[in-house]
Amino acid sequence: MGASEALIVPNDIDAALSDPRVLWTEDILRFADTDALGHINNTTFSVLCESGRVHLLASRINPTLPAGVFFVIARLAIDFRAELHYPGAARTGTWITRIGRSSLAVAQMILSGGQLAATSEAVCVLMDSTTRRPAPLPDQARRAAEALLRAPEA
Amino acid sequence: MGASEALIVPNDIDAALSDPRVLWTEDILRFADTDALGHINNTTFSVLCESGRVHLLASRINPTLPAGVFFVIARLAIDFRAELHYPGAARTGTWITRIGRSSLAVAQMILSGGQLAATSEAVCVLMDSTTRRPAPLPDQARRAAEALLRAPEA
Amino acid sequence: MGASEALIVPNDIDAALSDPRVLWTEDILRFADTDALGHINNTTFSVLCESGRVHLLASRINPTLPAGVFFVIARLAIDFRAELHYPGAARTGTWITRIGRSSLAVAQMILSGGQLAATSEAVCVLMDSTTRRPAPLPDQARRAAEALLRAPEA
Amino acid sequence: MGASEALIVPNDIDAALSDPRVLWTEDILRFADTDALGHINNTTFSVLCESGRVHLLASRINPTLPAGVFFVIARLAIDFRAELHYPGAARTGTWITRIGRSSLAVAQMILSGGQLAATSEAVCVLMDSTTRRPAPLPDQARRAAEALLRAPEA
Repeated sequence: MGASEALIVPNDIDAALSDPRVLWTEDILRFADTDALGHINNTTFSVLCESGRVHLLASRINPTLPAGVFFVIARLAIDFRAELHYPGAARTGTWITRIGRSSLAVAQMILSGGQLAATSEAVCVLMDSTTRRPAPLPDQARRAAEALLRAPEA
Repeated sequence: MGASEALIVPNDIDAALSDPRVLWTEDILRFADTDALGHINNTTFSVLCESGRVHLLASRINPTLPAGVFFVIARLAIDFRAELHYPGAARTGTWITRIGRSSLAVAQMILSGGQLAATSEAVCVLMDSTTRRPAPLPDQARRAAEALLRAPEA
Repeated sequence: MGASEALIVPNDIDAALSDPRVLWTEDILRFADTDALGHINNTTFSVLCESGRVHLLASRINPTLPAGVFFVIARLAIDFRAELHYPGAARTGTWITRIGRSSLAVAQMILSGGQLAATSEAVCVLMDSTTRRPAPLPDQARRAAEALLRAPEA
Repeated sequence: MGASEALIVPNDIDAALSDPRVLWTEDILRFADTDALGHINNTTFSVLCESGRVHLLASRINPTLPAGVFFVIARLAIDFRAELHYPGAARTGTWITRIGRSSLAVAQMILSGGQLAATSEAVCVLMDSTTRRPAPLPDQARRAAEALLRAPEA
């Protein structure tokens, strides 16, 4: 399943866990996350991805932004690799894979019980709240993003 | 189970359906609403209740309010009477049962497939956004609420 | 707002935290739990209540049950006492307040940041999966429930 | 953003709306779907995609399957093209774009208010419930899928 398929090899989890450029968030799975198939519904994976993305942006990038701009998500792709089950928890690792003129691409891995449950890729675009058009990343935001940059081949 | 238990008798559904003081909202049940027991998770009932409450407040009461006040929910009680299933839809009827100094009490019935799935009662309190304290209902809001007032014994 | 209003006095949180009859679950709030008012949506409170109830039943009562019976929720009442905010976490304490012929009543308190965010009461009914009618609580389940019984006036 | 970006041109919506190989589901947006940014949270888009996928599989493919196999989602990619707002509704069109040995690829478009809100692509894999390994698509399921096949360039 494309680039992300090639990205994860057995020792990638250990590498991500020890890489300071990967930010980790923890989520606790809820009974309300289950579905009629008895496992955690696939839409919860997108909730976990969002927790990780919002944490990265809110803690590292947004504090550098001027007023009047904000990030929106333009694309999200999730590769589902294992079921998640209730009760349980999940950890989501998020890092930046590409810094564009107005966008940041991020990659993520979701772990549960030491196992890889999913990988994902997302593109976040900086928007001007007045014009509702993409805004160029300010230099300070670009520098903050570079500190978390970890290319797919890293 | 209290007042709402006594409230619903067989012909109450018909009465509510034909009563202009009852506002109806429709929701479509989603696969993501199911849980590991195979039916719609009970937390979705509170989502349906919210759809009905927000519709009543947004369409009938909020347009009469001055700036600087807003409603919060202080209490929600749901009596579950039948399971909901996917695929399916639900209709929620909402009316006002009591007009307090700073609050509105509403009652609701959730129908699906012609059957009563739940009843609920909620208390919404008007808050002052500056002081974060309850604000008295303005006269115009009170009059708008009176048009939807349908006492439990109605 | 009724019995639960009277129930919580300033030192009740400390009492609950140190009472072995109160089972605690932890939830991590998610960005997806927020709503257009900027805080955690009220329906998430019912999700937290469910996490606590399911944990109590699954860990303490269900292991004592024979095949062919299961609990359903018959009533849920939540008193909202403070907003919850993202990012943040919540702890839900759950105990049993009444043991009926076929039902268990539970009470809950939701804490976040050391503050009481909500209290709730719920009634769970044991059902026979064949007849779909309430089933009497078996003696072993009754004894397991009695170990967690903490009357409202306790 | 890849293949799906090229896929949608102005008259594609009309073509999809009149193409019997595209199955449509309707969803009603809920206040609980909003987030702190004031619009419908992005994770709701994955809920809408799931409604469409489940409807296609449950109505057209699953009735042809023998016992002991079921579909899981292996990949989901969503391109977000416009915000969704409450109150409102959304229609999701779903069709099959590729029939593999054990998998079906589907494409979707989400419309709201006559506007394209998102496109998506997903891969669903048929699993053997005993071995938990991919199972080949039975001939009858393959024929049912071919009736909905609509290649990306169609």
